[in-house]
Amino acid sequence: MGQLEEYKNLFYPSTIAVIGASANPEKLGYHCVTSLIRGGFKGKIYPVNPNLSEIYGFKAYPSIRDTPGKVDLAIIAIPRHMVPDVIKECSNKGVKGIILITAGFKEAEDRIGLELEREIAFIANKYGIKVIGPNTFGIVNLHANLNASFTPEFSMVEKGNISLVSQSGGFCHLIAPLSLKDGGGFSKIIGLGNRCNVDFADVLEYLEGDPETKVIALFIEGVDNARRLFEAASRVARKKPIVVYKAGKFKTSDKASLSHTGSLAGRYDLYMGAFRQACIITVNSSEELLDTSKALSLCSLPDGNRIAVLSAQAGLGMVACDVCEENGLALAVFVDETVQRIRDLLPPLSIRTNPIDMGPAWYNWETCREVIKAVGVDRNVDALVMLAAYASANEPIVREIAETLKTIAHEKPVVTCLPSPGNIWIREKKELESANVPVYPTPERAAKALANMVKYAEALRKQDLQINLKSPT
Amino acid sequence: MGQLEEYKNLFYPSTIAVIGASANPEKLGYHCVTSLIRGGFKGKIYPVNPNLSEIYGFKAYPSIRDTPGKVDLAIIAIPRHMVPDVIKECSNKGVKGIILITAGFKEAEDRIGLELEREIAFIANKYGIKVIGPNTFGIVNLHANLNASFTPEFSMVEKGNISLVSQSGGFCHLIAPLSLKDGGGFSKIIGLGNRCNVDFADVLEYLEGDPETKVIALFIEGVDNARRLFEAASRVARKKPIVVYKAGKFKTSDKASLSHTGSLAGRYDLYMGAFRQACIITVNSSEELLDTSKALSLCSLPDGNRIAVLSAQAGLGMVACDVCEENGLALAVFVDETVQRIRDLLPPLSIRTNPIDMGPAWYNWETCREVIKAVGVDRNVDALVMLAAYASANEPIVREIAETLKTIAHEKPVVTCLPSPGNIWIREKKELESANVPVYPTPERAAKALANMVKYAEALRKQDLQINLKSPT
Repeated sequence: MGQLEEYKNLFYPSTIAVIGASANPEKLGYHCVTSLIRGGFKGKIYPVNPNLSEIYGFKAYPSIRDTPGKVDLAIIAIPRHMVPDVIKECSNKGVKGIILITAGFKEAEDRIGLELEREIAFIANKYGIKVIGPNTFGIVNLHANLNASFTPEFSMVEKGNISLVSQSGGFCHLIAPLSLKDGGGFSKIIGLGNRCNVDFADVLEYLEGDPETKVIALFIEGVDNARRLFEAASRVARKKPIVVYKAGKFKTSDKASLSHTGSLAGRYDLYMGAFRQACIITVNSSEELLDTSKALSLCSLPDGNRIAVLSAQAGLGMVACDVCEENGLALAVFVDETVQRIRDLLPPLSIRTNPIDMGPAWYNWETCREVIKAVGVDRNVDALVMLAAYASANEPIVREIAETLKTIAHEKPVVTCLPSPGNIWIREKKELESANVPVYPTPERAAKALANMVKYAEALRKQDLQINLKSPT
Repeated sequence: MGQLEEYKNLFYPSTIAVIGASANPEKLGYHCVTSLIRGGFKGKIYPVNPNLSEIYGFKAYPSIRDTPGKVDLAIIAIPRHMVPDVIKECSNKGVKGIILITAGFKEAEDRIGLELEREIAFIANKYGIKVIGPNTFGIVNLHANLNASFTPEFSMVEKGNISLVSQSGGFCHLIAPLSLKDGGGFSKIIGLGNRCNVDFADVLEYLEGDPETKVIALFIEGVDNARRLFEAASRVARKKPIVVYKAGKFKTSDKASLSHTGSLAGRYDLYMGAFRQACIITVNSSEELLDTSKALSLCSLPDGNRIAVLSAQAGLGMVACDVCEENGLALAVFVDETVQRIRDLLPPLSIRTNPIDMGPAWYNWETCREVIKAVGVDRNVDALVMLAAYASANEPIVREIAETLKTIAHEKPVVTCLPSPGNIWIREKKELESANVPVYPTPERAAKALANMVKYAEALRKQDLQINLKSPT
């Protein structure tokens, strides 16, 4: 059975049992049912709770045994000591996918937790059940209207082609709201928790073949089987970009990792080196993880590191240039034709080299468009950074240059920063992102995301690999 | 005449003439009038335009000579060749403050610009006129309802005690929308532009005595008179924190600076070293400038570098710890009493050392409060980082712990990250910030802002200086 088939019950179930479903908002089982409803799940939902006959209008069942027909996925949120028996019941029912929300296993300070987790893994492996967790918030598959988590608000996340895999559920609860603010569309969001029988390597192998995943973002605390992870990641990174944010850089967080999901983070530098060798993109913050994933999700890969920076206000251009140069990007030297064209178009008040300051051409949108076009077709330019802060005097600018940027984005990456107050330009920015032009909150973040893309493309070229990210997923 | 008196006309004018006021939205003079109105300016506004009799219901005057009575401030947005004569007219009228929006002076590639700027500086100096600009977007004084800029939306910025001084107007147009999203209240926002007779040092000396400014944030591209800047900044930084973001780290942006506002950025490393020696906080991004300024604006200064990290989800705590340790903060070792108290309160499932994971105590708000209180009074703890991502299951958490955090914030800094989707927790976060508990979008940014505060406090201690930031400004 291939990976896609094996994980089908987890990510594309038709029937879901929620074991530990509750009508009490103080129980996670309550929120799990709410999440399925809020996510617009189209299949059957069976709440399981021996004390209730109905939850949210769904008939409740005393046990999974009593549910009618086949069950693809069981979401379990019950006290830990009951879990092994319930998993046995699930196996009898033919369940092949389980989300085990319950915590208090390997990560707990007591021995019982560890023993219980071993027992669960044994049963699950024996019956060929894929268990996400324990100690997980769940999984979300936005393409299947599946919110199999205890947080209904994950269904607010925009649909896209980034899949986020995290040991920490808390981290997913950080990235999701960030994406609502800063953009980024998701395919699957997966909280691995303690990884009793589904680990990073397994999910990577699954996502490798998942047509709805173009970019894989990982948040890793500790690693149990480093060799397996690196083997899987190295292979997958040649087909799809993997962006890794690794916690546990220092000893305190490393120690915390052990208590959190039962793994030592350890050997941070070794990991980083190995990741980079394997064409895996490493980042240093949650925002950088999101920003870089978004760039890879929308843009084609740059052919080189020669960047053009265009700005409506020179200050923003300078800031972007600093980040470009700090991260190995080169400011493109335009071909003579472009230089001449810009000299013809822009008044001598402007900075007409790279970075280009289009400020003095305000109100002359045709000029702005022509400058951008000239730079866009320059064969010495591998990617563009376009920066324009809102001022009431330049309000039309984003609409006026949008088509030009979109056209260039067919050929080479264009990243932008278009700061604006309140609701101004919200629609325009969304339209740009729909046309594969990512928009970032600051020039620095735009430049950094681009630099990470360039690094990835360079790493692939070094290995004589080519990935065509242009095809929309 | 003291600094406060000299700059009174600029920042607290009663009467403003807008020279070049226009009814045409394609002219900056139009937006200048709109800004004054939108800002709710309470004094008199005299539009000056020889071709119009009225603008926005205000009687227009053919020249500044024709305006009635005294004029405190003139905002000028007219073609550059007309500027020297108009400044002479202003001097005849007794104007002592000018915002010179017009561009095309020292920063232009032609000689005429440089000559015109010298002429303007000569006239202004001769008549004792303070000129902000040329080549500026203007200034904003939120405490005086003064939006003397070409962007009405600056009046959306929240009132507070941070004053931002920037060479680049574009940079102000970046920080203002960022602050609307990420928080931060401003006193004055000042675009210095070409600094023909008002430079960073002058403004620093003014802000030193300004009771409405508690924190000074600087965006510097190039420096003309480094010695004067450092002398002023060194003195002021002992009284009020100064946070500097310096562009021109690399040669491209350095070159761009020359063309932008006519100054070479140059010698980045030298500048950084000198800044740090002078107790000036240096930052590396626009967001860090805002985040650090906000922390200093709200918090009391920490007595040391020993931090407690508390989280509702362990993953967020790990990420914060990494940033803390990377930036010279130490994870506090709790006194025995605290250790015992936490052991009594939290189940063995939790991480009960520092960082503390309060996850397993969800729903037990009393326990959460008691844990936070115990850590808050620990004499080994100089500051707290509190992290809690929204999940529907923990929705009440921010309300439940707010009072405890606020109480601790009277004694030591408490920084937080409370990620939440959409409009959830918006009100709660605002209330926390009103009570001097800053809220950040990510754990990393919260930890970094705190680290910068700690560095500043340490630098002051090394010089045997103490600043009481506790008094609200």
